[in-house]
This record gives sequence, structure tokens and C-alpha cells, in this order.
Amino acid sequence: MGPGTPCGEYLRRFWQPIITSVEVQDLPRRLHILGEDLVTFRDKSGAVGLLELYCPHRGTSLEFVLVCDKGLRCCYHGWLFDVDGKILETPGEPADSTLKERLYHGAYPVLEYSGLVFAYMGPADKRPDFPIFDTFDLPGYDLVAIPGYVWPCNWLQVKENSMDPAHLAFLHTLPGSTGFTVDLAALGEWDFVETSAGMVYIDTRRQGDRVWVRVADFMPPNIHQFPPNADPMAQRTSINRPTATRWAVPLDDTHTMQIGFNRAPEGREARRGAGFGQDGSRPYKERQRIPGDYDAQVSIHGGIARHSLEHLASTDRGVIMLRNMIRRGIRAVQNGTDPMQPLGQGGKAIPTYSQDRVVLGIPPAPTPEEDSRLLREIGRKVVAAGIVDRS
Amino acid sequence: MGPGTPCGEYLRRFWQPIITSVEVQDLPRRLHILGEDLVTFRDKSGAVGLLELYCPHRGTSLEFVLVCDKGLRCCYHGWLFDVDGKILETPGEPADSTLKERLYHGAYPVLEYSGLVFAYMGPADKRPDFPIFDTFDLPGYDLVAIPGYVWPCNWLQVKENSMDPAHLAFLHTLPGSTGFTVDLAALGEWDFVETSAGMVYIDTRRQGDRVWVRVADFMPPNIHQFPPNADPMAQRTSINRPTATRWAVPLDDTHTMQIGFNRAPEGREARRGAGFGQDGSRPYKERQRIPGDYDAQVSIHGGIARHSLEHLASTDRGVIMLRNMIRRGIRAVQNGTDPMQPLGQGGKAIPTYSQDRVVLGIPPAPTPEEDSRLLREIGRKVVAAGIVDRS
Amino acid sequence: MGPGTPCGEYLRRFWQPIITSVEVQDLPRRLHILGEDLVTFRDKSGAVGLLELYCPHRGTSLEFVLVCDKGLRCCYHGWLFDVDGKILETPGEPADSTLKERLYHGAYPVLEYSGLVFAYMGPADKRPDFPIFDTFDLPGYDLVAIPGYVWPCNWLQVKENSMDPAHLAFLHTLPGSTGFTVDLAALGEWDFVETSAGMVYIDTRRQGDRVWVRVADFMPPNIHQFPPNADPMAQRTSINRPTATRWAVPLDDTHTMQIGFNRAPEGREARRGAGFGQDGSRPYKERQRIPGDYDAQVSIHGGIARHSLEHLASTDRGVIMLRNMIRRGIRAVQNGTDPMQPLGQGGKAIPTYSQDRVVLGIPPAPTPEEDSRLLREIGRKVVAAGIVDRS
Repeated sequence: MGPGTPCGEYLRRFWQPIITSVEVQDLPRRLHILGEDLVTFRDKSGAVGLLELYCPHRGTSLEFVLVCDKGLRCCYHGWLFDVDGKILETPGEPADSTLKERLYHGAYPVLEYSGLVFAYMGPADKRPDFPIFDTFDLPGYDLVAIPGYVWPCNWLQVKENSMDPAHLAFLHTLPGSTGFTVDLAALGEWDFVETSAGMVYIDTRRQGDRVWVRVADFMPPNIHQFPPNADPMAQRTSINRPTATRWAVPLDDTHTMQIGFNRAPEGREARRGAGFGQDGSRPYKERQRIPGDYDAQVSIHGGIARHSLEHLASTDRGVIMLRNMIRRGIRAVQNGTDPMQPLGQGGKAIPTYSQDRVVLGIPPAPTPEEDSRLLREIGRKVVAAGIVDRS
Repeated sequence: MGPGTPCGEYLRRFWQPIITSVEVQDLPRRLHILGEDLVTFRDKSGAVGLLELYCPHRGTSLEFVLVCDKGLRCCYHGWLFDVDGKILETPGEPADSTLKERLYHGAYPVLEYSGLVFAYMGPADKRPDFPIFDTFDLPGYDLVAIPGYVWPCNWLQVKENSMDPAHLAFLHTLPGSTGFTVDLAALGEWDFVETSAGMVYIDTRRQGDRVWVRVADFMPPNIHQFPPNADPMAQRTSINRPTATRWAVPLDDTHTMQIGFNRAPEGREARRGAGFGQDGSRPYKERQRIPGDYDAQVSIHGGIARHSLEHLASTDRGVIMLRNMIRRGIRAVQNGTDPMQPLGQGGKAIPTYSQDRVVLGIPPAPTPEEDSRLLREIGRKVVAAGIVDRS
Repeated sequence: MGPGTPCGEYLRRFWQPIITSVEVQDLPRRLHILGEDLVTFRDKSGAVGLLELYCPHRGTSLEFVLVCDKGLRCCYHGWLFDVDGKILETPGEPADSTLKERLYHGAYPVLEYSGLVFAYMGPADKRPDFPIFDTFDLPGYDLVAIPGYVWPCNWLQVKENSMDPAHLAFLHTLPGSTGFTVDLAALGEWDFVETSAGMVYIDTRRQGDRVWVRVADFMPPNIHQFPPNADPMAQRTSINRPTATRWAVPLDDTHTMQIGFNRAPEGREARRGAGFGQDGSRPYKERQRIPGDYDAQVSIHGGIARHSLEHLASTDRGVIMLRNMIRRGIRAVQNGTDPMQPLGQGGKAIPTYSQDRVVLGIPPAPTPEEDSRLLREIGRKVVAAGIVDRS
């Protein structure tokens, strides 16, 4: 994850959320992101900065500071730094000192979007536009920034879960689990296709003459979106856009911050924290009896999956595709080219595909094998059509 | 301790207790034994299994599971494992998948005996019979399984204590210590002999015309037995068999689980947990003022005795014999032969020697030196006679 | 810090305080000093010893012991050690054993002075006289031993602070800080000179026709003294000797014990513990808002200053001089010679220079540059004069 590693350099080519805006108020916040010690703060003018943690003078941590009208001042000898790392004052130095002109403190560009602070930690000349996904401003939905929660494991095993629909039918329908409907317990037809934004899984189920198509997005390097996990037949008859957009931001090799947005139809309250089974706070025995995502994923090989010990099966096709997509990105950066990065065309938002959709009037095919094929065909058509009927 | 190390391979040639039966009920138990991550569980049919901790599919810890009628099911994708590691189901895989026929999950054989679960973690073709010691079914005594308590130190320094009668006269008669009688404060005549089951120390004291002979067993690789630590003259006039049988099971190089049996005459209550000074739970200053076995042994060189810093003395003859016995066993395994392993003859239990015995009518010899020799001679005769008068 | 390292060997050539006398009473105290595991204790005769922690026999920690009339006895087998490491008894060994004549337990010489226990951990033939500084017995002042408080960082960054007057003007005049007067917020003229005892900083400020000269000592390898941090004009018109003498004793590379003396005019109470901002016990957010010495120094580069990341400036002249003085000492020891070590001449106490002094009747020079030069000249004269007027 650290600077200079193949995967670290790849991840640094993307804007990453680092904290919610409301968490950066009057006091600086010490952060550990992609293996780097950093401090973020908001000066009294409202500008947000992300600086190297240690003062360039003598190394005092800039978490202990005076936040100023412009920038922040180290507590030890009063050096003053602007949000972009410019050194504004070096008190005690002679009037003719050029020290502050010759030295810059390490800083990364940041921006705020809908309640999250994003940073770009890669090479300055490779900075991409900030990606606006179509789900960031959905008519009829409110977007809510969710504070990060940290899992003590590697980020990749967290992200792989997003292209693993098989676990829905087991983990999320265990007696006592909440947040998912029992309809998911029936095994779906699982399919995986690349999209303009990354890839999706398509989880399709027959319900009489109706076909329920459930689509979840993965956008490289570490974003996923998923629909509401509920049988749309029970309450809805048409499209549902994603309830959540999540980044899995590596803090280091064995700690990952999940952070992002929840959304809810206007007038309804979005969930504001981790859901059932999404953290390690429950009593151990309860986690043993009714495990959740946290337990199934964090416990893998004690925190970092060792791929040589795995026995991947046909249900892992999406995981393998996701790994290959990330591997291609890492190799692109290693080869001096740009990694695949979804971008909006002509100023438009980037289309994504996560949805629940029900297709009506599809009677079963004559044999189970033919019906499986039919369901997959319908699923692919739904994705190929994109999000057309936002009614 | 790990697999492949000389000492690890030696210890793996013996059945080892890993937990009490009552601790393996409706929930699986994660264990770390001989450096390996394992999970033990009892399925709903009552069968007990000991499996590798991490699911062979994607690595989720099998401490988070569904215990089933037969075997246990990983929470993440529902793979089902029998107690012997056989993979019974791989849900989601195609009907014609042969995956579960081609793959076995790691498992060790277990058996339950008198409330303890024992495992054999060595090569399958070297598995010995489970050793039944004569103390496992003593007429007139009840056997009670004692849950393991963990000491943060190496197992060898714990086990050496069992052949170290000298410490009884100091550590266990400190003012405030309980569990031992003050009679032990007098230095005994100490002698050590090999037996059919391993070795014993013989701690002999004169009391007028009577001679009190106290014998404790060591059975390789990591078992010991000792009598009740009380002056038999005060309450008894004849034999007493061991109050405790203990295994020192290495969890790793610096953690050792003491586990085993206590026994008590029928109708009397056996002690059910660690005794005085047997754990680290007392306040530090109290442990300084009245140290116990835990403090004296765990503190050695910070957790692992460095033999090069020791200065062994004549009181350490038993420790040296014990080390040599273990060294011979390690070398035997390294050389491809079998280590010494006590076995019963013709279906009979394995005889052991731990006892308190008083020999009457032995007036003192003319000189202290001659009396010392006399006491040692009587001690050896008691051991040579075996346990003859169980009345 | 450990034995055999260049800096460790240098530091071992000086007497170091290890604990206060009142902390060594009826129970032994386990210590970790200069990377070594030790135990100090006071036997029932009142003699204080400092021994290697682990018993030479079988390695039990001597923190679990019987303190005896003479020496202390290991709890495991009763070996008895005198305060100088001599083995007095090896119970259980034969009457003709010469073991205790042939073996000595590791011990360091100690002495008690004004409530502190000092140890010498260097080569026996290099042991210097115990240094009596002139501030140890100041007429009209009481000396109070201050128990050590441990900072989780390297000792050098703690000690460097003592020759860094610039931080007074920032860190110690932050709103909410206590213990320093706002007069220090004005930048002083800073000067640094070597003295017979080590070096001093001279922090000089003009107040009308008066000049306030503030002098602090550094005595190698790890001692400093500073005056009361208060504007003497407000309450006093003449000299003030140091309020504190402090050693920064390395426990290991990332833990440093600050220990030493406070002093107060007779009849007034000296501060008995760490002052404001001198420890990590305050709530984190309060430490962020009003940082103290602890926060500014401990946080440097996460615990050990990495000099290659620093950008030293003109305010760091004293830090550079201090580093050079220590470097010269380390090299002297490496070259087989003796490090600079302040010693009293002809039985007299070693003169030191820390003081607050006000020089009256000095009108400002015509220009700021000339006045700066004038102030520095006055400062140097004050130090050159030594402590002459103790009235």
C-alpha cells in the first residue's frame, strides 16, 4: 500500500475519500492512509488541508497545533503552514531568511463532495478529474456521507466480497441476520460482465412469470454499489438504484476503512452507520452464532488472504474477474500507462448499473437448463440497456 | 513447537489433551495448539471434530459457522465439513462438480476420555494406542477433568518443575503459601530413577522411627503426577496415590496450557481449578510477597529459559535427567525410530509410581551420612516394589 | 542504549539516577535501565542493591523474592544474594560445595543522595567520583527528589529541548499553558556558550533600561537545569537559581525516564510531580488544543527523531552544539579515552550557571542591531562572572 509499491502506486492514481467533512472541524485529525502518516484540518477560513504529519523543522506531529485564520502552526516553534504545504512563517529566523521560500511541506490536494473529503495522493501530472458517478445526484434520493469504519484486514478481501453474490444466499440469510430478505436464500443465476464503469454481477431469480434481476457495481480500484437487498416484488415493481456506494480505503496492509455514501428516497431516513454484522462490536458468541460480513471477511487467514491456500470454485468467477481487473490496472501503472478509470463523457456523469429490476411476463422455459440460459440472457439485456427508465 | 521442528515432531507422536468435553458444546472453539490454528466442535450428532481453522475455499475462519446435524458449515458460502475433514457439500457448485471428492479439509483424530478431549497430531501411520495409566481408574477415587489454564512461558520450564523436589522446601513453604504442609520445609533426601513409565523423584524424610517416602512421576513427553503434598503422618499411615495428573501442552513457544485430571477419594470434592499460586491473577505485590509456581516458573528469563545462562547445581539432577529423556525422544524421532512411549502390557493399564508412603520401624542409622544412605535405599525399594498395597 | 553500543558505553561512564529512595522500601522493584533488566531492593539492614533481574541458578526473576536481613533470596530454590551480587547461600547443595565461591551474581554499585538512588553501570576501573553540583546544596533552598516519569520516546529529543530557548516563546506561551509567564512570549536574544560544566543557553530580553538574562545549563551526558520561568522583574530584582535539575535516563531506545530534583526557597513547597504538559495523562483533545512539552517532544517522528528529515534553522544552534558535545563524548569512549565529565576542583562542588538575573541601568543602544549585540554581550558577561552574588 505504501508509496513505491506496485499496488500503492496504482491506488494513488484515483481520488480517495479520507474522512467526512463534519469530522474536520476545529481540531486537526491525524490519519493513516495508504501507509502514510498525515494530518487533515480545516483552517479558520474554511479551507481544508492534508499535510504530512511531521513538521519539516524538527519533526513534531502537526496534530498538536494552533489552527489559524490561514493554515496551521506547529506548537513547538510556531512554523506556519498553508493548506497546500506552503510555509508562511518561520518565527525566530532572521528577517532575511529565505528558508521558507526554499522549503515546501508535503501536502496532497483535497476536495469536498457531498460531505466527504477526497484526496489525490498520486503524481501531480497524473491527477484525474474527480469522478462524478450518476448515482451521486439521483432525482428523488438523498445522499448521506457515512463516517469510515475500520476493519482489521486487507482491503482486497473486503472488495472481493462486492463481486461475490453467492455469499448472499448463505451468510445473509442465516437465521437472525437482518438487512436482507429471505428471498435471497434461493440460489440465483450468477453472471458477471464488464461495463463502461468497471464490472457488475447479475443475480437473477425467477418468481413465477416474473424475473428479478439484481445488479451490483464494482468500479476500480475500490468502489462498489449495491441495491437495497430486498425482494422488489414485495414492495416495488420496477427499478431501484443503489442504496450504498462504498470505498474500501487501505490504511495499511491489515486495516481497511469502509467509507462512502448511503442514499434513501427523499423523505426517508438513510442508515447512518454500519449495518448488521458490519463491525466487530457484537459479543463474540453472538458473532459465532449469527456471523456477518465483518466476521466472514475479516477472519480470512487471520487478516490477509493467502491466495495459495484458496480453492476457488465456479461461484468465484466474479472474484477472479475483479482480481484480473485490478491486476491489469497495477500492470498499466507499472508499464507507464494509465489505468482504466471511468470518466464521464462530455461533462455528463459516469453511468453505473446497480439496480433491482423486475421483468414481467417471462414464463419458464421448458427445461431447467434452458430456463437458466433464459434468465442469464434477460440479466445481460437489463445491464446492456443501462438505466433507462428512472421513473 | 510448530510442525517440522524437531521438538514439534516429537510432541506430535503422543496423544495430547486439548480441551475439556464440557467446553465443546453448541459453539465451536478456536484453539492454538503446537503452533497450529485449529477449531474444535461437537456436531449435533455428538461427534467431536478438530479441523484446520481456515476454510479451504476462501479462508474464512471456521469459528464462525453453523454447527449441523453432521459436521459444520462455513458461514461465508456454506461449504459443509464432517468431523474428519471430509467435504460433504459445496453449495452453488454445478451438480456434476467433483470438487468435494478431490479435496479434503485438514483434520486430526480426537477421542474423549473422562471429560477431556485428546488429539493426535502426528503422522497417521505412527498413531499410538491411547495410553491408559493406572491412575485413570483408581478404586475409591473420582477423576475430575480440569480446564486448561495458560501460562505465558515455554512448556519445558513448566515441566522441569515436576522433577524438582528442591523447590518444595522453599517456594511452597513460604509464609502465606497454602496447599503444602510445613513438613516439606525440611530438606528431604532427593533421588531420581527411571521407571517403566518415565522417571520419578523420590523425596524421603525421617520422622523419628518412621520414614516418609514421597514419589512423583514424569511420563514423557509432558505429563506429571504428584501426591497430595501433605504429611501423611498427620492423617494417614499408608499409601496415597496422586492427587493430580497434568499435561503441559505447548500452544506456542511462549504459551503453555496446563490441563489434566484431579482426583479425590470418593465422597470428597476434588479441586476444580488452579490452586494457590498457580495463575497470574493475584495482585502483583501479593505475588512478590508470597510467590507461587506461576511466578517462579513463568518469570524465568522472561518466558523462555536460556540454558546458557543457568548454573545447574546438584539439586537439579532430576531436571537434567528429564531434559535428557526428552532429548533422547527428539533424537529418536529425528533418526526415524519411535520415541519411548509408555504402553500397557496385555491390555492392562500402564503402571505409575506417584505416592506418599510411610515405612514404619526404621530407627536412625548411627551417622547422618549412613542415615542418608539408608533413607535413599528405602526410597528406591518403595519405587521398585511398585504400587502393591492399594488397601 | 544497550551494553556494547557506542552511545550505551558513553552513557555508562556516568552515575545515573534510577529511582527515588522512598520507592525502594520493603519490596524489590523491577527496572529496565539502559536496555538492561535489573532489580533494585533495600535489605532489612537498609542496604540498597541493584542486581541482574534473573537468578543465576535457573533464571527466576528476582522481583519475586524474600528480602532478608542481609540481601535477598530467590523464591524458587532459596539462593541468597548480597547487595553487591555475592552469593551468600545455595541451600540444598552439599556442605562442601564451592559453588557460591566460584560464582558472582551481576550487580552495579549504587549510592543514595538526597532522596535519589544513583547507579554506575560502566567499567569498574572507569568509575568516576559522584558529581556534586553546586545546586545540590544551595543555602536557603530545599532539594526535593522527584519520582521518574516515563516518556515513550528517545532520550535525545528530550534532552535537546533543554538547549532550545526558542520553544519557550511558542509552546509555553500558548493560551491555556501554565507554569511560564507571558513575558517569555517576546523573542529573546539567544546565545549559547560552553562552560566548565557543559554548556548553557543565554536568553536575554530588554525591559526598558533593565536587561533580563535567563541562563539554563546542560551538563553532559543527560542533565539540565533551568530557572523558574518567571519574569524576575515582577517579583524579584536579582538572581534566581534553578528550580529543577533533570536527568533524561534512557530505559530503551523509545522510553525515557525524566527524574531528578526540584528545589524551592526554604519554607515554600516545591512541586513534587510532573508539571503542566509534562505527561500524557490529559485528554487527547485538550493536548491538541493546549499542547505541552510532552506532546511537542514525544510526538517527534513517532518516538525517535530521524535527523535526515529535519531542517535545522538558526534557532537550533543550541541543539546542534548539544549534539556535538554528546558526539565528542561518544567518540572519546570509542577511542579509549575518557569523555568530558564535570568534576569539582579540590573537593568543591561543581559550578553551574543556570539563573535568572536582571542587570539594571542599561539604556537601549541606538539601533536594534547594536542593541542585539549589547544584549548578547551582557548575557555572556553574566555567565562569565559565574554565580557571584548569591545574596
